[in-house]
Amino acid sequence: MYPQLETESEQDERATKVRLLTTNSNCNPKAIASDKDAQKAQPPPSKWRRALLRHVPVFQWLPAYNMEWGIDDFISGITLGLTIIPESIACALLAGLPARYGLCSAFIGPLIYLIFGSIDKVIIGPTSLVALVSVQFTVGRPIEFAFLLTFLSGIVQIIMGAMRMGFIFEFISMPVIKAFSSATAILVIESQVKVLLGIKYLVPGLVNSVRTLSSRIHEANIGDLIMGICAIVFLLLLELLERVARNQKRGKALRICCRYLSTSRNTLIVFIAAIVSYTWLGYREKLPYALSSNALSSLPNFTVPSLTIETPGRTYSFWQVLSELNVGIIVIPIVGILTNISIGKLTPKGLVDTNHELLTVGLCNMFGSCVQAMPSSGAFTRYAISTACGLKTPMANLYLGVIVLLALSYLSPYFNYIPEATLAAILICSIFTLLDFKLPMRLWKESKRDFGIWLLCFCVCVLFGVEVGLFVSIIVTALHLLFLWARPEILVKIEELDEMQYISVVPGNGIYFPAINHLRGLVLKACTQAEFKITVVIDGHKITGLDYTAAQGISKLSSDLCRQSDASSSTLLILYRFPAHLQHLIDVTDNLVFCENETKVKEFLTQESLRNGYINLKEHIRASIDLGYKIDIE
Amino acid sequence: MYPQLETESEQDERATKVRLLTTNSNCNPKAIASDKDAQKAQPPPSKWRRALLRHVPVFQWLPAYNMEWGIDDFISGITLGLTIIPESIACALLAGLPARYGLCSAFIGPLIYLIFGSIDKVIIGPTSLVALVSVQFTVGRPIEFAFLLTFLSGIVQIIMGAMRMGFIFEFISMPVIKAFSSATAILVIESQVKVLLGIKYLVPGLVNSVRTLSSRIHEANIGDLIMGICAIVFLLLLELLERVARNQKRGKALRICCRYLSTSRNTLIVFIAAIVSYTWLGYREKLPYALSSNALSSLPNFTVPSLTIETPGRTYSFWQVLSELNVGIIVIPIVGILTNISIGKLTPKGLVDTNHELLTVGLCNMFGSCVQAMPSSGAFTRYAISTACGLKTPMANLYLGVIVLLALSYLSPYFNYIPEATLAAILICSIFTLLDFKLPMRLWKESKRDFGIWLLCFCVCVLFGVEVGLFVSIIVTALHLLFLWARPEILVKIEELDEMQYISVVPGNGIYFPAINHLRGLVLKACTQAEFKITVVIDGHKITGLDYTAAQGISKLSSDLCRQSDASSSTLLILYRFPAHLQHLIDVTDNLVFCENETKVKEFLTQESLRNGYINLKEHIRASIDLGYKIDIE
Repeated sequence: MYPQLETESEQDERATKVRLLTTNSNCNPKAIASDKDAQKAQPPPSKWRRALLRHVPVFQWLPAYNMEWGIDDFISGITLGLTIIPESIACALLAGLPARYGLCSAFIGPLIYLIFGSIDKVIIGPTSLVALVSVQFTVGRPIEFAFLLTFLSGIVQIIMGAMRMGFIFEFISMPVIKAFSSATAILVIESQVKVLLGIKYLVPGLVNSVRTLSSRIHEANIGDLIMGICAIVFLLLLELLERVARNQKRGKALRICCRYLSTSRNTLIVFIAAIVSYTWLGYREKLPYALSSNALSSLPNFTVPSLTIETPGRTYSFWQVLSELNVGIIVIPIVGILTNISIGKLTPKGLVDTNHELLTVGLCNMFGSCVQAMPSSGAFTRYAISTACGLKTPMANLYLGVIVLLALSYLSPYFNYIPEATLAAILICSIFTLLDFKLPMRLWKESKRDFGIWLLCFCVCVLFGVEVGLFVSIIVTALHLLFLWARPEILVKIEELDEMQYISVVPGNGIYFPAINHLRGLVLKACTQAEFKITVVIDGHKITGLDYTAAQGISKLSSDLCRQSDASSSTLLILYRFPAHLQHLIDVTDNLVFCENETKVKEFLTQESLRNGYINLKEHIRASIDLGYKIDIE
Repeated sequence: MYPQLETESEQDERATKVRLLTTNSNCNPKAIASDKDAQKAQPPPSKWRRALLRHVPVFQWLPAYNMEWGIDDFISGITLGLTIIPESIACALLAGLPARYGLCSAFIGPLIYLIFGSIDKVIIGPTSLVALVSVQFTVGRPIEFAFLLTFLSGIVQIIMGAMRMGFIFEFISMPVIKAFSSATAILVIESQVKVLLGIKYLVPGLVNSVRTLSSRIHEANIGDLIMGICAIVFLLLLELLERVARNQKRGKALRICCRYLSTSRNTLIVFIAAIVSYTWLGYREKLPYALSSNALSSLPNFTVPSLTIETPGRTYSFWQVLSELNVGIIVIPIVGILTNISIGKLTPKGLVDTNHELLTVGLCNMFGSCVQAMPSSGAFTRYAISTACGLKTPMANLYLGVIVLLALSYLSPYFNYIPEATLAAILICSIFTLLDFKLPMRLWKESKRDFGIWLLCFCVCVLFGVEVGLFVSIIVTALHLLFLWARPEILVKIEELDEMQYISVVPGNGIYFPAINHLRGLVLKACTQAEFKITVVIDGHKITGLDYTAAQGISKLSSDLCRQSDASSSTLLILYRFPAHLQHLIDVTDNLVFCENETKVKEFLTQESLRNGYINLKEHIRASIDLGYKIDIE
């Protein structure tokens, strides 16, 4: 598509490499020598080997794996496993699914990411973000729709990765991502408030939901509310222990103890709440709060999902499934991968291979759907915990996966004792980290345009759904980028060179077809004001690109100048410092010349001045000014 | 939407104005003085008057109208009238409508353009381009769909004009317009070949049509073919007379005679062919060729079109009409206005007020639909004739309109004697001017990317319809412009300043969010090759814009450099010549500094060199090189 561009950048890269290598040998010959030795001893990896290392990152870190890493990873894995279990149950509930389906995502995802994952601290599993979006496409439909959504999301992610379409994520700006995640947090919290209050209803949209909630607030159950508030207070207190853990003044044992209490707070509250419920049920038949009901137990079967869905009432063909899932099969893959990319940018390496990430998460989802998992991705909450635990390699995923599998096998019956309000409290506390209102305040001060984008994205996400908000914001930011090509910065000034005046035109960017009429308009306006008597110099040193339409427009500008001035003389158009490889596109006319340096420009300006007799005129005027009076020249 | 941008450009404009006025008074005091006198004598036009002059251009030229212009306009008007009559009949036929509806567009359009038109040489009327596109949306439907399409196109154009959406036409590049018109020419010619052969069928798409034609070629009627070929030969010969008219060596009378013969060739051939048919029918009952059948006569009634369509078989509600016309109500307005803009760019003034043009053509279409007209716009064929006849003002539209009205009133019955093959010949010969294969050959040599766009647009237009081609090409060119923001030109080189080396990074354009990861990637790659031991200087003198995401990315780059080098020393990041108004967006970190001039850069480089001890190392190496041998430094 862009052969020229690519070739150029490749050449640049090569040039950079060559020069950098030369530099290296000058400034540190020893390093180069030792490099050479190393190369002799160990032949450079073959093409296949390099591809393997790149696509299956486990081979990169496994050979160097050591005991020290192992301990850190083991502790992190266990802690993460204990965190991901309640989180998965809560997310499954948010997505309108039994707990089991959340747990299925939480063991298959990590096990695959262990082998193919390239970002150490990404832990694949259900997230409230993905759950919130996916529920919109599966609510009120048979449960099989959720697994097929997972499967198709995986397929779409793999296709996008294989087609190297990862670059489209670069068109999502930071204000959009931040507004999107803040809006998600608001929506998740709103959806959990009703669970905290023990009110059950299902209406689409935040506005409708708030309206329903306020009209039914009298139905609130005090038992759920107390359980929920206790859980939130417990979680917040344990989160505060993290500060003690960071305080270097405290003893080491206390700090470690605080850290693990803090990071395993989700598991602790679930454990405590379940024990309370179990004990209470020993004395009473009914509890004052609602329990989560998860009828299933035991391990899932591995079955490739069928592309058609058969329910007692109706049979959906594949095309019907597709039309029911609608844009979901595009939105879920994109939303899912967004968090991983954002986390990737936070890691020390800082650069993410988006295409590889698409392939990996695609695999996680595709295999996930075979064990009836819901769509999954990395999550910020888990990133925070893995950082706190000092996770070293994706090996932690192994321990995590085993913990989740054990829970699925042996603990499933006990999941029924977890109060719903406790799960809501976990979701609310974990999503709180995504709420960021400092950014919009900063944007308001520093960049009104970015603030506008943030506000647009946030409002549309909250009012019309996160997928609509994301789509609208991407379109608006893309249109703004296009608009920048239509109205680039062009400075038009009168300048002087050796007392010869000229109209200086400095286009700021490359000039492409949307901008050429704007450029022509500005130049012609300036020329009209100057009565077409002053030479025009277009300074092209900032121009990086020019297409055929723009080049023709510049040629046409020279004939405009020709036609509009007196028939006898035509205004000269000097193209100064235009990149050589772009000059051939411009048709040379009688009054258009290229100049590479100032001397040439001066020459042409002098010629023009002589031809038009301006020098005499000007000197006359200057003389009169110098004498302190002004004369009119007849 | 873009408050900052607009304010900036406004300021620039003001600055330009002020400076230019100063300049004027320096270089030509007399002109300014006389301007001032004129202003005193005649007060500046009020705001309302200026708006009137701008929106109703007839007031601009009418007060200055004189006899000389009058004669030129009269001759042009009559000639154009005689040309537009057969052209309109042919276009109506192409659009699957009786002749009368073409003629209705040919009188109402010019009469409105007379008052509101801003491009002198645009003559509104039916065109084969618009006819070809509109037939796709009206074929097989009741005739009222055609008028409603005209009406809705007009409304859409007026809305676009009122909302100042004319700038979207700037996103159609020249290769796209040229490919689009060449493809139209091909399609029109193909559609007329079957008429020339006297074969009647209606299949959608060029491929199907060619297949049908080849399978039914044996049905060709020799009578139609002979009539058609004779007409084409006649038209080509008379077109050649234009060369005689241009030859200054010939006598004036001969040249004028040749010019009028050439410009009225369409009328002549229709007239001759009709007389032949009329005479022949005096002797025989049946002609060996097909005649065009136009059952209607007399003037149309002025009635506002009904938004619902009632036919004997079915009643269409307004929404049904909209869904049947589909994208037609967007495509026809855009296609219609494209020619006007292209013609406007060819005129001496060179700059078109697209929004005004949208409003005017919108009015023409809206009123046109009240007299049962088909969608109309300017045409290149009529532009050529008006240029040849020396048309001066839109007044020619008046004479043209009267001629067409007269024809509608008195000649309608005689239209039935015009052979179809003659009309086909007229269409073929007039559309030939749009076929341009020199451009793609030039593009192939000079700009492969533009050639690619041309080829894509041409192929899609020909194979899938012109509206699809136009849409796809606009999307592809827009995506390319977006891609340019994602992968801007960034030069990364090792440079030296006073023998201190640094990595010089020069971004070519403004850096916005899609490019920031690319920039970070390039810098980190270069730093890795240089082992994070050389200072990085990002030269921002070409940067025209920076958004929050990109600014954050640059701050993040400095911490990347900090983290990746040894813990002891961090690589310094110098931001050199960054526009002052963009600096506040970037968070300053320990290893990030702004420099305004080279001296400052040198200072920092020296500091860094001293800190890292490179100067000694380098001088050591330099000394060894000067002595003619090389030593390894332990």
